[in-house]
Amino acid sequence: MAPRIEIDADLVRDRIDRLAAIGRVGETGVTRTLYDDAWVAATDQYAAWCDAAGLAVTRDAVGNVWGRLEGTAGGDAVVSGSHIDSQVNGGRFDGALGALAGLIAVAALRDQFGAPKRPLEAVAFCEEEGSRFPNAQFWGSRAITGRIGAADLDTVCDGAGRSIGAVMRDVGLDPDAVGTAKRGDIGDFIELHIEQGPILEQDDLAVAIVDAITGIRHYHVTLTGVQNHAGGFPMDIRNDPMAGFLELGAGLIDTAHRAGRPAVSTIGRVEATPGARAIIPREVRFTLDTRHPDPAARARQYAVQEALMREVAARRGLGIDWTIELDHPPCLSDPGILAALQAGATEQGIATRVMASGAGHDTQQMARIARVAMIFVRSKDGRSHTPEEFSSLEDCVEGIRLLAAAMHKLAY
Amino acid sequence: MAPRIEIDADLVRDRIDRLAAIGRVGETGVTRTLYDDAWVAATDQYAAWCDAAGLAVTRDAVGNVWGRLEGTAGGDAVVSGSHIDSQVNGGRFDGALGALAGLIAVAALRDQFGAPKRPLEAVAFCEEEGSRFPNAQFWGSRAITGRIGAADLDTVCDGAGRSIGAVMRDVGLDPDAVGTAKRGDIGDFIELHIEQGPILEQDDLAVAIVDAITGIRHYHVTLTGVQNHAGGFPMDIRNDPMAGFLELGAGLIDTAHRAGRPAVSTIGRVEATPGARAIIPREVRFTLDTRHPDPAARARQYAVQEALMREVAARRGLGIDWTIELDHPPCLSDPGILAALQAGATEQGIATRVMASGAGHDTQQMARIARVAMIFVRSKDGRSHTPEEFSSLEDCVEGIRLLAAAMHKLAY
Repeated sequence: MAPRIEIDADLVRDRIDRLAAIGRVGETGVTRTLYDDAWVAATDQYAAWCDAAGLAVTRDAVGNVWGRLEGTAGGDAVVSGSHIDSQVNGGRFDGALGALAGLIAVAALRDQFGAPKRPLEAVAFCEEEGSRFPNAQFWGSRAITGRIGAADLDTVCDGAGRSIGAVMRDVGLDPDAVGTAKRGDIGDFIELHIEQGPILEQDDLAVAIVDAITGIRHYHVTLTGVQNHAGGFPMDIRNDPMAGFLELGAGLIDTAHRAGRPAVSTIGRVEATPGARAIIPREVRFTLDTRHPDPAARARQYAVQEALMREVAARRGLGIDWTIELDHPPCLSDPGILAALQAGATEQGIATRVMASGAGHDTQQMARIARVAMIFVRSKDGRSHTPEEFSSLEDCVEGIRLLAAAMHKLAY
Repeated sequence: MAPRIEIDADLVRDRIDRLAAIGRVGETGVTRTLYDDAWVAATDQYAAWCDAAGLAVTRDAVGNVWGRLEGTAGGDAVVSGSHIDSQVNGGRFDGALGALAGLIAVAALRDQFGAPKRPLEAVAFCEEEGSRFPNAQFWGSRAITGRIGAADLDTVCDGAGRSIGAVMRDVGLDPDAVGTAKRGDIGDFIELHIEQGPILEQDDLAVAIVDAITGIRHYHVTLTGVQNHAGGFPMDIRNDPMAGFLELGAGLIDTAHRAGRPAVSTIGRVEATPGARAIIPREVRFTLDTRHPDPAARARQYAVQEALMREVAARRGLGIDWTIELDHPPCLSDPGILAALQAGATEQGIATRVMASGAGHDTQQMARIARVAMIFVRSKDGRSHTPEEFSSLEDCVEGIRLLAAAMHKLAY
């Protein structure tokens, strides 16, 4: 058995509170969007904490902050971190907890076990939320994996219409150097993040080992029928796209519900044209967000849902058309890292369960260049992207202990 | 058997075409809204045609135009007409055909049968559509029935924010005299109107006798649930108001569909909050337009639909709240006038069916002061409120023949 890894709860509390104070909104809200003043202050603070912990600090071309502890045997690094930006009026834990966890875990390992064989690194990704530049999502981890094109620097703009390249210059970053952020020497990446769901709370567990990030597809669907007077047209001869939407929307949701966890499907937006009370609509448009972490089950789910849409539309004499606006395949965790996490949990006496992430994370970008996995920490009421977002100090400490245990297995 | 009543098809065509030219939009569209220039020209034209037909012309305080033929025995008048205003870019027949039909029928009766016993009148109501002043709907027939309040003159405004009282003064009408438009000497009222639905076309009939105007109720419904992340929350523990809407909306429409004609229910508008692709909504708001012309069946329909809404919301853990924004009871036609229409149809050899009106009409206002019924003329493809709105000359003539036959039964 490995010795118990100690994580200083007072330090964790201090770091969470002080990072939350940068961009604070009200009591517990945080607004820290890419390259704004709060973001600059937060990355400076993160760099200072890395430095104080004896890690070698670097900032790359897009503003990711790295703290590195060299390994005696060299080789590819074992890295942990998450994003330092937030939603507009988001919470204190989403992203921030994972960035701090990497830093605290690496420092604790150095303090308790000395120099590792492999290099250890903590990272604060500059951006994940898309809360300032909607098309910049995963800006930090995309730069690390070499997936930012030169055109992005001019075409990705914020709500005020300013290009991300121009805004980078404002904060002292050179957009022409984006290519230098690419890393080829990261072996393993583990991201700790709040769950953003209620499953751990339901199971009365502090932490989970994440074996996959779900596959996500967004459909934009248009159903077309025949507009007519709501009073003059009998029900039996209508081509009412709203009636079609009601049937097929229920079926789309039922498809995921019947499949059971972890399948999910959500209709978040719908609108009818012309949208008058006394007119049978001629068109109904809606979005479908549909997710499954298992590649085969995901393919079946999408096929069933597409067949349903075609069938209902054809039977009801409606036109149907859709575009796929987003399509992320599932990201499966690496078996070797999962084994390190499982062994670490057992040795440290941390009760866990294995689950998939229903949300997207930087980890799915990092999977392009490294072996990956994630740790989830319990979220109160499953809430996130809100000032009410909360994870207890005890749960955060347990999550960081598990992270440190796995990094110890991989690097020592 | 009464003699065949002759209606001059060339005259009907001429009147339809010339009235359609006033406010014409494109080939076949018409925009003639209350008190605008086209409206002024149309009422002048209608008054001139009444005068040319030998009828005594009067204009009342709101601008309804009346053409009267005195009766030898006096008594309450037998009146026919419809509204002279149109939708914005509406068609040539909605309202206009009925206003012309009254005038043509009265003139034809006088020409073919001489003076009636009871007075006969044709009327062009100033307004029915609400297309300029949304809250002025039935302005003409409301004035005739004494249902315009003094406050309406200041509070009913057009899209430019001008009060209807001020606009009346612009066209030479005295808003303080609105009370004088009230009539207490109308015995019977028959309105000819296009069907605005496909039933006569399906039945291959030119005209129908309308035995009721449907009861209409508009609900505005709000379903509230719990907003959450579309990825992190399992289907089985969601309180998703969209899922609730899909189930209950389908049930609301099915309630009317299963009841069969003439029950109808329409959901014309829906929106979700916050309306994002990857967020389970916290609120879904929608409208329900639900109609039945039979008072008892209508009450049952509304009770079933309200019970369904409560049941689905309660079972799914959703909040539900609704307001009733409009609630018109059914308007049943008078048996005596229906008998006159039936006898007239038989004597004139006009094939008809009896049906309810699914739309509201001035007739439901006039029912407060007179015995009423309506005649429908076949609409091509059931279309209305569009430049494509069309009824054939032959069908229009048959409708006016039926109107004249019934007026003959009632007045001679």
